Amino acid sequence: MNDAFPDLGRLVAPRGIAVVGASQREGAQGRRLIDNVVLHSAFTGAVFPVHPTATEMLGLPCFASVDDLPDGAVDVALVMVNATQVLPVLRQCAARRIPFAVVMTSGFAEVGAEGAALQAEITALCGATGLRVYGPNCPGFVNLRDRIGMTFSPAFKDDLNPGPIGLATQGGGLGRNVLQALAHGPGVGLWFSAGNEADLGLPNFIAHMALDPQIRVIAVLMEGIQDGARLIRALQCARAQGKPVVVLKIGRSEHGIRAAQSHTASIAGSAQVNSAVFRQYGVVEVGDLHELATVSRMLLAGPPRATDGVCIYTFSGGTAALAADLAGAAGLPMAVLEPRTEAALRAVLPAFASTVNPVDTTADILRDPQMASTCLRIVCQDANVGTVVFPIPMDYGEITAGMAATILEVAAHSAKRIVPVWMSRRLGPGFEALERGGLLPFVSLSDAFAALQKVYAGHAAVQAPAVPAPHGGADAPAAAALSEVQAKALLRSAGIDVPSGRLATTADEAVRHAEAIGHPVVMKVVSAQIAHKTEAGGVRLDIRSAPDVRAAWADIHASVAARRPDAQVDGILVEKMFPPGGRELLIGVHRDAAFGPVLSCGLGGIHVEVLKDVTHRAIPLERAEAGRMLREIRAFALLQGVRGQPPADLQALEDLLLAVSDFVVQQGPRLRELDLNPVWVGSVGQGAVPLDALLVLDDAAA
Amino acid sequence: MNDAFPDLGRLVAPRGIAVVGASQREGAQGRRLIDNVVLHSAFTGAVFPVHPTATEMLGLPCFASVDDLPDGAVDVALVMVNATQVLPVLRQCAARRIPFAVVMTSGFAEVGAEGAALQAEITALCGATGLRVYGPNCPGFVNLRDRIGMTFSPAFKDDLNPGPIGLATQGGGLGRNVLQALAHGPGVGLWFSAGNEADLGLPNFIAHMALDPQIRVIAVLMEGIQDGARLIRALQCARAQGKPVVVLKIGRSEHGIRAAQSHTASIAGSAQVNSAVFRQYGVVEVGDLHELATVSRMLLAGPPRATDGVCIYTFSGGTAALAADLAGAAGLPMAVLEPRTEAALRAVLPAFASTVNPVDTTADILRDPQMASTCLRIVCQDANVGTVVFPIPMDYGEITAGMAATILEVAAHSAKRIVPVWMSRRLGPGFEALERGGLLPFVSLSDAFAALQKVYAGHAAVQAPAVPAPHGGADAPAAAALSEVQAKALLRSAGIDVPSGRLATTADEAVRHAEAIGHPVVMKVVSAQIAHKTEAGGVRLDIRSAPDVRAAWADIHASVAARRPDAQVDGILVEKMFPPGGRELLIGVHRDAAFGPVLSCGLGGIHVEVLKDVTHRAIPLERAEAGRMLREIRAFALLQGVRGQPPADLQALEDLLLAVSDFVVQQGPRLRELDLNPVWVGSVGQGAVPLDALLVLDDAAA
Repeated sequence: MNDAFPDLGRLVAPRGIAVVGASQREGAQGRRLIDNVVLHSAFTGAVFPVHPTATEMLGLPCFASVDDLPDGAVDVALVMVNATQVLPVLRQCAARRIPFAVVMTSGFAEVGAEGAALQAEITALCGATGLRVYGPNCPGFVNLRDRIGMTFSPAFKDDLNPGPIGLATQGGGLGRNVLQALAHGPGVGLWFSAGNEADLGLPNFIAHMALDPQIRVIAVLMEGIQDGARLIRALQCARAQGKPVVVLKIGRSEHGIRAAQSHTASIAGSAQVNSAVFRQYGVVEVGDLHELATVSRMLLAGPPRATDGVCIYTFSGGTAALAADLAGAAGLPMAVLEPRTEAALRAVLPAFASTVNPVDTTADILRDPQMASTCLRIVCQDANVGTVVFPIPMDYGEITAGMAATILEVAAHSAKRIVPVWMSRRLGPGFEALERGGLLPFVSLSDAFAALQKVYAGHAAVQAPAVPAPHGGADAPAAAALSEVQAKALLRSAGIDVPSGRLATTADEAVRHAEAIGHPVVMKVVSAQIAHKTEAGGVRLDIRSAPDVRAAWADIHASVAARRPDAQVDGILVEKMFPPGGRELLIGVHRDAAFGPVLSCGLGGIHVEVLKDVTHRAIPLERAEAGRMLREIRAFALLQGVRGQPPADLQALEDLLLAVSDFVVQQGPRLRELDLNPVWVGSVGQGAVPLDALLVLDDAAA
Repeated sequence: MNDAFPDLGRLVAPRGIAVVGASQREGAQGRRLIDNVVLHSAFTGAVFPVHPTATEMLGLPCFASVDDLPDGAVDVALVMVNATQVLPVLRQCAARRIPFAVVMTSGFAEVGAEGAALQAEITALCGATGLRVYGPNCPGFVNLRDRIGMTFSPAFKDDLNPGPIGLATQGGGLGRNVLQALAHGPGVGLWFSAGNEADLGLPNFIAHMALDPQIRVIAVLMEGIQDGARLIRALQCARAQGKPVVVLKIGRSEHGIRAAQSHTASIAGSAQVNSAVFRQYGVVEVGDLHELATVSRMLLAGPPRATDGVCIYTFSGGTAALAADLAGAAGLPMAVLEPRTEAALRAVLPAFASTVNPVDTTADILRDPQMASTCLRIVCQDANVGTVVFPIPMDYGEITAGMAATILEVAAHSAKRIVPVWMSRRLGPGFEALERGGLLPFVSLSDAFAALQKVYAGHAAVQAPAVPAPHGGADAPAAAALSEVQAKALLRSAGIDVPSGRLATTADEAVRHAEAIGHPVVMKVVSAQIAHKTEAGGVRLDIRSAPDVRAAWADIHASVAARRPDAQVDGILVEKMFPPGGRELLIGVHRDAAFGPVLSCGLGGIHVEVLKDVTHRAIPLERAEAGRMLREIRAFALLQGVRGQPPADLQALEDLLLAVSDFVVQQGPRLRELDLNPVWVGSVGQGAVPLDALLVLDDAAA
């Protein structure tokens, strides 16, 4: 599955590093770069400063150019030269068979057409030579766990807390925010900052970390998606290894999209499609930067089991009520405490304490550290408790610092997730102690529960079965719609059940067709110029006799002639009428810029048009995803049967979704658009049948 | 309007205070109480310690009992004695004509039936004597602006930052969290902590602060609503004064309700109804404790004007994109910068900076404090900018501290709302400076935008016109449903247009009625035992001739006899058939435990039943609220006309909602339940007519 991704082992842990553009000039980026590699790293390999005139730098001999570097000694060339010099340097790297170059220089696709052309030359060079380029326009790569800083960032010397979280970002700076958030406790082991992704990009880095045994959770800050299919393959690598991928995707609102486009050169897909594909491939999507850090950290603790409920534990009644309220609103599973837990709490706590969840010890425990420690231990030992949320509503200086010490002590000896929430803005010594102890205290209850909700939901996603890789592909230029008859013939040949219909060119023929098919029938105008037949007066339903067929024939011709005098009528399609009482759905396919063909599904009529109640999946679709997809429809209850209606034939509907997915795969990139609207769905056993079909193919000669 | 609320002037700023239960014993609550009043307050009036044996306390002469206190010298008695002693003390207070008692003692309704009985005696005493009691079971009252601490809280001595925000809480402790959040910059002037509300309660405190000229925003932490009608009257006082009321309501989820009930003795209404009534009366509802503080603070700055857009201003491209994204998702109005602003920014910033909103100055400003100050000033001077959100993505120690100093300096000279967001968990000196400078920096972008969203939406609510006071009332015991004929007669007599229908007891009579009314008609069974006529087979639609009337007559009797052999049929109602194509709504009334009669409205069928798309208002309803209510329905677009449908008669629908509200007021507390389902709503000019009515009255003899 990982065939598509090159091995990045020598990039991540190189034996030799060349620093092209190294400098000792005060304030130069090239100086900060070599200082990081030589002075602030614990790099044990060889460093080769490249400088046109200098002979020695930080005690190391300099090389006048890449051409002069010793054979086979350099795994990574760090490139920090003027934009115009980047390509010549990369050509030299390729010639010297240096496998990786990290280009930090700016001035490429992010600054306009000229820069984009320069960047395209980098991409072409990589394709032609096998050189792999990281960047350009990026702060470099940081391997914290081996302490190798291939970056010009002056903050690298403070990035001192490695750990099992892998981080991949686009757009540079914000990754440092995640590092600062995880400065205590388990931290970030590798930080890839993808920049403009001329060659290597987020999918490469995700796939690498999926296979890196020291990385246990992958955190991603994403601005745009260059290649949805590759991204999905990388996500599948992570899922195959059981590693959660936590993504903050910027560009979800229109405002964000605009900013993302002016910031990096990448394609921002529609937010709904992105989120649906993330769900499909098990990504835990978060909504803010602090969530990226906190959710990634919490996912290190392993998946919550079915019995791992949340227990709220605090020393203030109002806080207990507020926290229980917010936890309930977040849909978290609340633990029911074991009887022995309640009994043990009752034995130590005052009578007016609450020994059920939410636990309110009362403020008495503030005066008795021994009691505080005992009670928290009791709750942590409860088999129904997976997570203890401990809100601390106020700062009482040394008193709450003592409580923090108790929490740290209990946490050190418990496998349970303990989530302290420091609700006061007075971030006193207790907060400091929790922070330095690596417990990552939240500063608001709603943030804590939002993050926990993602942890609980996220593990369900990671544990779901893997799904096949998508069928990607870019748009082609010209396209044309097939007639309904042509579209249905193509669908039928692909095994999709569509109504048995016949084209009539005279009224007599229509009568014969209707008799052959069996009444009742529907009649629909066929014209290359008419996409919306109902609006043109070109549809008649529930026709039950030969005279009615003749009347409908005349009616349709008259209406169409009046409303669409421009249209050439090729005939009238006579089709089996499906019984009323079926539910109508819409199934559609369009091409997403990032993910290629995307399947959409929703209930027809106002549900899609007014209420926007529609859901999406990247193609191909797996059977389990078909069921999950349908259950994302808000009005799904209508398919289950309400108000005395029998349940709809969900099995047939899932089969149809899968058949459509297969059809789209068969058609390949020439399929531009497919609209099955309405799809008739009967009761269980009656099937699901597209009654109308709009199909747009590139080079559509059918 | 404020007639219902007693003047609390002498409670808030008393001339003399008696401390009943004062003590000098180490650790006693009575000691902390008198210490707060005498040592930690700046109280200039007289203090009278009451103690059975002591003669002197803190240099003040003691009184053996309340009976011994000097005449007319005491405005407030602070009561901190055993629960069993509280009533005798209060009786003495009443006898001595002391106007106010603050009872801090616990052991009343919060501990069970016995305590509740004791509390009921307090309530009765107040009613009988005119004594006003605050509490019991509360930490007391804190007047920060005059520095009078009528509380036993040891934290009072640190409550040092008064200001124009008024705070009212239930359940005690969490109010201190708000005080700690507002410890710098404009703070809290008065803090009422209502406790069990035996007499005075949240509505009193809100109404007092509404009229207090030094209070500009009212913050409320609410666990339960004892008396919805009084609460609404208090909210109206605040609205009449143009003062925003910001409420955090605990008990929104089932979990929270359970905790709230075990914590204080109050009635938690349904969350949806509470929130709808809050919207109706202009309350700004927030979702977490930190929002209560931050939104209240931000609302001090006065209402955003129509042109007061939000400008995002930062020095990192990724941060700009993320912030714009989240601001867009929060629905905030983004400012379009004036051309001269862009030009001025372009003149100072590097070429690759973004000078449109979101503004990205690039990290260059970190090295140039002069440039940083100039750019922020330029943005603040833009006429389209009301709020500048300044995210600071990373902590760079002294460098970001310098940026904080710049923000504080510009904020001091600008009337614009500047909202710093400190995104790093490293809360370095820059964060400290912003915090101490009173700028209340947020620590997450999403929290900042959520709060701003409430500020922007909240002012719209405050500026909306005032609405009439509600018709409250408690439930009565026995109730019975009227027949459809009786219910419609009652509605018609109240001026509500219902279909002209006649009861037939024979088929011949039904034929005559149908001819008199005019075909087409509908026929519906009338039986006291049948509430759901359609399910019983008791309804026939679109009857167009005398033979059809006879057929329907026979059909209905046969179906009902088969399906509901238990039912006695009183006859068949013949009614005008309304033309198809009308939209169907449901209008209902039920009695909420807190707010009395509540009006609900939604589109009929699956919209209410499956999609739960329904909205609420307390009765009486004002015209402007009728329109706003309809616009809260998610599927409102269906009423405006989609897919070629003409718009519905919204005017008639609003008239009907108002007529129903009037009807409910006229009926008074005997009206238990009203269901108009369906309500037929035609196109503009065609009206809105309830086609069926279910009415449940107490003592319903009709």
